[in-house]
Amino acid sequence: MITFLSDYGYEDDFVGVCHAVIAGIAPDVRIIDLAHGLPRHQVRPAALALRNALPYTPPGVHLAVVDPEVGAERRAVALRTAEDERLLVGPDNGLLALATERFGGAVEVVEIGRSKWRLDPVSHTFHGRDIFAPVAAWLAAGWPLAEAGDPLDPAALVGIELPRPRHEEDGTLIAHVLSVDRFGNAALNVSHEDLTESGLRLGHPVLIEAGAGRRRRAHYAVTFADVAPGELLVYEDAWRTLAVAVNRGNAARELALRPDSELRLRAEP
Amino acid sequence: MITFLSDYGYEDDFVGVCHAVIAGIAPDVRIIDLAHGLPRHQVRPAALALRNALPYTPPGVHLAVVDPEVGAERRAVALRTAEDERLLVGPDNGLLALATERFGGAVEVVEIGRSKWRLDPVSHTFHGRDIFAPVAAWLAAGWPLAEAGDPLDPAALVGIELPRPRHEEDGTLIAHVLSVDRFGNAALNVSHEDLTESGLRLGHPVLIEAGAGRRRRAHYAVTFADVAPGELLVYEDAWRTLAVAVNRGNAARELALRPDSELRLRAEP
Amino acid sequence: MITFLSDYGYEDDFVGVCHAVIAGIAPDVRIIDLAHGLPRHQVRPAALALRNALPYTPPGVHLAVVDPEVGAERRAVALRTAEDERLLVGPDNGLLALATERFGGAVEVVEIGRSKWRLDPVSHTFHGRDIFAPVAAWLAAGWPLAEAGDPLDPAALVGIELPRPRHEEDGTLIAHVLSVDRFGNAALNVSHEDLTESGLRLGHPVLIEAGAGRRRRAHYAVTFADVAPGELLVYEDAWRTLAVAVNRGNAARELALRPDSELRLRAEP
Repeated sequence: MITFLSDYGYEDDFVGVCHAVIAGIAPDVRIIDLAHGLPRHQVRPAALALRNALPYTPPGVHLAVVDPEVGAERRAVALRTAEDERLLVGPDNGLLALATERFGGAVEVVEIGRSKWRLDPVSHTFHGRDIFAPVAAWLAAGWPLAEAGDPLDPAALVGIELPRPRHEEDGTLIAHVLSVDRFGNAALNVSHEDLTESGLRLGHPVLIEAGAGRRRRAHYAVTFADVAPGELLVYEDAWRTLAVAVNRGNAARELALRPDSELRLRAEP
Repeated sequence: MITFLSDYGYEDDFVGVCHAVIAGIAPDVRIIDLAHGLPRHQVRPAALALRNALPYTPPGVHLAVVDPEVGAERRAVALRTAEDERLLVGPDNGLLALATERFGGAVEVVEIGRSKWRLDPVSHTFHGRDIFAPVAAWLAAGWPLAEAGDPLDPAALVGIELPRPRHEEDGTLIAHVLSVDRFGNAALNVSHEDLTESGLRLGHPVLIEAGAGRRRRAHYAVTFADVAPGELLVYEDAWRTLAVAVNRGNAARELALRPDSELRLRAEP
Repeated sequence: MITFLSDYGYEDDFVGVCHAVIAGIAPDVRIIDLAHGLPRHQVRPAALALRNALPYTPPGVHLAVVDPEVGAERRAVALRTAEDERLLVGPDNGLLALATERFGGAVEVVEIGRSKWRLDPVSHTFHGRDIFAPVAAWLAAGWPLAEAGDPLDPAALVGIELPRPRHEEDGTLIAHVLSVDRFGNAALNVSHEDLTESGLRLGHPVLIEAGAGRRRRAHYAVTFADVAPGELLVYEDAWRTLAVAVNRGNAARELALRPDSELRLRAEP
């Protein structure tokens, strides 16, 4: 089984051609499309989505391509994780970093930019088709990782930096948006524990200050239906991350949120 | 086989993660995505789409998730239809009602909110992944419906109300938009018989009055190509429902139509 | 195996219902979606996409539906190509022409508008579901092409006209946009050889003149990363066609390009 995540979108045939290449190499391998509508060329939201999704997928080959530097110096890699022996394939630009960490780190890494399995010729702009998909297919067909390319020190892999929340002296919690989904729900870099430490309590109001002086009152709730339609809530989302949403509305639009936006949260006095 | 319909969209990994959960439980079960770009949180267009699509699918497990009240009081259900023994799985908010009715009603219903097959923990906001997908997977793997949860009286299922057309004394037919597709074609709640009863005849002009005083002349036609590009037509669509369209254009945009919009149709004097 | 390409989009259940119809007829046949978000009712970009994608797919049945004249006089066809014995199924409006040519032309063609395999009744507006998908399914299940309908002379197939580049006396190369992808990259009807003939050299600047007096300086480069973010480049794309792009930007938007737009390219003096 191969899972496949990218920013290729659905307007063109990028995703379909990768499927076709895989089917040509490994006709019996099932492909599960995790997501292809992720924001173009943004590595971090895709790295978060991959980390969140993989625990729900059976172990297998996990192909991921968000590749703004395709054709430039960035490495192409395939790796095996310590836990679950998952095989991750993609550009070495941080995209695989959070998922790799989630499964205990990489125990074997190969550089696949010149893999014997790549298509010939290799284009300069579509390594998903020409390098990543064929390597994923051969691995899913059971060939050993070591044959995919040249060994690389796991310590050389590119990491990814997430913003860190801060507690201010007056109890304000400074959080940041990690990603925004199609519904405008914004995942934050804080946990239930961070909120509790700042004196925020489930079932009580939260004052939210976003950029450009936007101040709003939200409810620290369990689910959408705990607040009236149109009202803001802070809640633990399906990935166990705290998030901001508007019941039947779009929080990202209302508060002008995007990845890295800073939010100040505090308990109502 | 499982068919899957939702409003999850393609931007995020909601659909992909449900596929992954199903593949983990029932690796050999094929999943057919019926549609995932349906209008967000709108139960009725999805209920219509499900009713229209199922007669074209082989009998199996039919998973549907449009779930604006997720985490609130609405029930989660799985049911078997009288005809074809189709198994429908989804929230009990009317989403399954029209398809259930299309196959003779429900003969067995179970409440699955606390199903032994749900994932643990269950999130408050993503029951597609945590309840509906696993229940659909176990059913598709051949486990009995009765084991999915607690029996529920079929009479307790939530129904769905469709607007009804009216004939006015001067022959005007008052129709309503049921749904609008990606091409801006608007399906109406009337049949060929309703039009005939109002003196409208195939091949002849129809006067259409939409909201805000929009009046337009249309052609009661068999297919798009019967009218010039840019012209309005009323026609029997592929689901045998009467619909309004613009040849190579967008009728919903031109006439400002959306679900429940009222249209007045009458023969040209 | 069936590959499937259309302009049906992902908002509605058009694609899903075609999958369902195929699964009902040929349950063991795998379907690879090549693309469904292609521009609505535009035959040429879809014909180009099909031609470009098929060399990357295993030979099989190739279903394609972009069908602005559905229900009118256009023929519905299935054909076998000279090379690879690929079976192409779709409307005879030019959609299949470039792919057919790519594989040596058609050696056997049947008209399938009244195929015994079509669904009954056939709608006037959704031949994808009612004619093309069932014919593709029966062919993929191994039934002979000759049984799909009535024989047709390959010479009767509708072709497709592509604009031709011109070299002006002052060395200017007049190129045209063939298609635009989701990233705003515009594929042109010229090759490396055409550029060389006009004195344009890889690694050097190119002056581009688009409509409405838009003049821009681009770099004739190997890949995106060869120019700074926001800068224009001319490069050989993944389908070995010359294209215009903006690194991390949208060339079609900046230069107001769409299919058939004319571009004047010349070497910087």
